[in-house]
Amino acid sequence: MEAVAIVTILALGQFVLFSIQVGSMRVKHGIKAPEVTGHPDFERMLRIQQNTMEQLVAFIPALWIFGYLVNPFWGAAIGLVFIVGRFVYRASYLKDPGSRGPGFTITFIPTAVMLVWSLLAALNVYF
Amino acid sequence: MEAVAIVTILALGQFVLFSIQVGSMRVKHGIKAPEVTGHPDFERMLRIQQNTMEQLVAFIPALWIFGYLVNPFWGAAIGLVFIVGRFVYRASYLKDPGSRGPGFTITFIPTAVMLVWSLLAALNVYF
Amino acid sequence: MEAVAIVTILALGQFVLFSIQVGSMRVKHGIKAPEVTGHPDFERMLRIQQNTMEQLVAFIPALWIFGYLVNPFWGAAIGLVFIVGRFVYRASYLKDPGSRGPGFTITFIPTAVMLVWSLLAALNVYF
Repeated sequence: MEAVAIVTILALGQFVLFSIQVGSMRVKHGIKAPEVTGHPDFERMLRIQQNTMEQLVAFIPALWIFGYLVNPFWGAAIGLVFIVGRFVYRASYLKDPGSRGPGFTITFIPTAVMLVWSLLAALNVYF
Repeated sequence: MEAVAIVTILALGQFVLFSIQVGSMRVKHGIKAPEVTGHPDFERMLRIQQNTMEQLVAFIPALWIFGYLVNPFWGAAIGLVFIVGRFVYRASYLKDPGSRGPGFTITFIPTAVMLVWSLLAALNVYF
Repeated sequence: MEAVAIVTILALGQFVLFSIQVGSMRVKHGIKAPEVTGHPDFERMLRIQQNTMEQLVAFIPALWIFGYLVNPFWGAAIGLVFIVGRFVYRASYLKDPGSRGPGFTITFIPTAVMLVWSLLAALNVYF
């Protein structure tokens, strides 16, 4: 499961990076805590980070269950697609929030595939 | 632990469903990203999804620790109560946010029970 | 891994406590769901709880990967620092949001240390 661990750490590192960038935007545009609005760039980066967190809540358990029930190396490979998709999502959202669709899809599909595949593998144990 | 994996996947599938419904509300009421307000139905669905995420952050580790230290089948059974409670929470919140109490409680109790029971089981190993 | 389980349960218990305190502030200041603004004390407690959730999303996987790849007892010890840091963060944020830096740092460092150390340990398996 070391391959799964490495991809998890990389995905969490990406999330930490996005969180730091939210903080930088906060300082840059003088938005004092606990305010969560005040400048479009800050609001976009905050939504990118929040959406990344939402996706991680499903992605990380999906990755580990998939690694455990199906195959850790395939899980790690699918997980790398997730990380690339998040960078695409970030870049497109910052440029134009309306163009965030493809980046969202590239990160959503890996999680969906791993969840469905793992469900079939788990059900196969009982039936 | 396959039973625990199945219930985790079902709970994450429910969360993905709620997230898709937030997106649908966004489109339906013409609320452009990164806006997070604009129509009561959208705001309610967003709060339902956000609260579900908050609960999952505690529920998923609680479920796996309980499955590992106490019993995976009991964990899976308690986890199903959580999922039912979330649907009750969603339905009541959409109808009237003030009536969300019972649905909230049905999802909170399973997590609390598993956390406390697991803590006692873990402490029992050392003392 | 029981030591890691105990620290995870304590950290989740802290998060549940913060969530209850958000609810209490909501009742105290008469802020009706789905509203998320209305009184500075409520908004501060909400941001404390949201930030704690963001940190947990990275901290819990980091703690378990570190426990698995490096050492569960060191993981548990580092995890206790995280919990203390969160209480410092909460106290300073409630008093003055501008003073939240040190509490934030005390919780961020444990996660960062465990992620980097675990990454090195995992890479060491392959290279």
